[in-house]
Amino acid sequence: MRTAGKADTRVFKYEYERPGLTVDCVIFGLDLDEEMLKVMLIERDVAPYEGVWAIPGGFVRPGETLIAAATRELEEETGIAGVFLEQLYTFGDPDRDPRGWVVSVAYYALVSPEKHHVHATADARQARWFPVTSLPPLAFDHERIFAAALERIRGKLTYAPIGFELLPQKFTIKQLQKLYEIVLGRKLDNRNFRKKIFAMDVLRELGEMQRGVPHRAARLYKFDERKYRQLIKRGLNFEL
Amino acid sequence: MRTAGKADTRVFKYEYERPGLTVDCVIFGLDLDEEMLKVMLIERDVAPYEGVWAIPGGFVRPGETLIAAATRELEEETGIAGVFLEQLYTFGDPDRDPRGWVVSVAYYALVSPEKHHVHATADARQARWFPVTSLPPLAFDHERIFAAALERIRGKLTYAPIGFELLPQKFTIKQLQKLYEIVLGRKLDNRNFRKKIFAMDVLRELGEMQRGVPHRAARLYKFDERKYRQLIKRGLNFEL
Repeated sequence: MRTAGKADTRVFKYEYERPGLTVDCVIFGLDLDEEMLKVMLIERDVAPYEGVWAIPGGFVRPGETLIAAATRELEEETGIAGVFLEQLYTFGDPDRDPRGWVVSVAYYALVSPEKHHVHATADARQARWFPVTSLPPLAFDHERIFAAALERIRGKLTYAPIGFELLPQKFTIKQLQKLYEIVLGRKLDNRNFRKKIFAMDVLRELGEMQRGVPHRAARLYKFDERKYRQLIKRGLNFEL
Repeated sequence: MRTAGKADTRVFKYEYERPGLTVDCVIFGLDLDEEMLKVMLIERDVAPYEGVWAIPGGFVRPGETLIAAATRELEEETGIAGVFLEQLYTFGDPDRDPRGWVVSVAYYALVSPEKHHVHATADARQARWFPVTSLPPLAFDHERIFAAALERIRGKLTYAPIGFELLPQKFTIKQLQKLYEIVLGRKLDNRNFRKKIFAMDVLRELGEMQRGVPHRAARLYKFDERKYRQLIKRGLNFEL
């Protein structure tokens, strides 16, 4: 509860020690042109870790839900808005923050980088995408948070249709395979991939071919909406 | 930081409002004899919600990791120890606790009820198992936390071997099917179940039959350790 403090300072007093509470947002960017998985980082402009790169995030305000705080901090620090954030994990090791006891609820999302205008504002000198394979040193325990998010998203590919909505409306099997390969960070066997994708039975062949490509035009597909929704609901098993 | 207070009261003062931080443990009990999924609840003996049933849990102490707090609170309130707790989700809606701003990190586990000696101690009048189908009214937002845990564990059955280690070392297909049916809370088609389980290719037929059963003796199986570990690693897809 708030109690009267000195002239200019309002102070909150508690009988027991309480943690600071933050949210952090691991935003993955699926770059289909550069064929690269990226992550959004900000350069901190306040202590601690001033000038060091970090996952965007900040303190939860009283009266705010956790998801509202995550959404607000992400937009304030990077300009990224309208993203479906999913809760990842809560990190609470007592020594994770040099300021003292600070617990952080981490969120994650997968987006198309080109759909977001990135610009740093509050508490960040700059915000930009980094390839997940070449990150700078990160503040706090953010390397651990990043690793947990990467593991989650890669694991989810084996039982949920992750990022399918980031493909063009009409796409080739090769493009769908690229999506998997970019997120997983490794090549997959072409023939096996085709077999598994067709076994999932969610694609509809459009009877159209790619146009204006320098290589042999491939067949175009789209997702069968009904089957795709079923797939989201019941999960899938895509052994990789 | 701790500052000097009145003679008997130590007080923590902060510039910004801070949340209280709790942990809650949703412990599911797989009762293979009664063929029932249960959940461990405690009757609170302190305000708020004095005399109301709740999920075991309590405040995280400074210097404690979240998992250590969850482990400690679970044992203090129910006597249940040595359980593999997995983090479920963090609940932080501002109005979830009448005491004010309290954020709770929820954990869950699935255990064999008969393997644990349940006895209430701190902050709980009593602790006992309830069938998940007939819960009393719960304190705070614990009905929501319980529902999230149940959904998680049921969802996980479709892509991970949940609770298999709770079966006897040698078991029948019927017993394995019962495990699924108890967790899911519904009957499965026998023939389909057998087909799917054998397709998973993790069972080893022992060439032994059940003994001392009033019905026709069934074949006994055990898990192939190597294949079972692979299954945990790569996940599975058990459409239900």
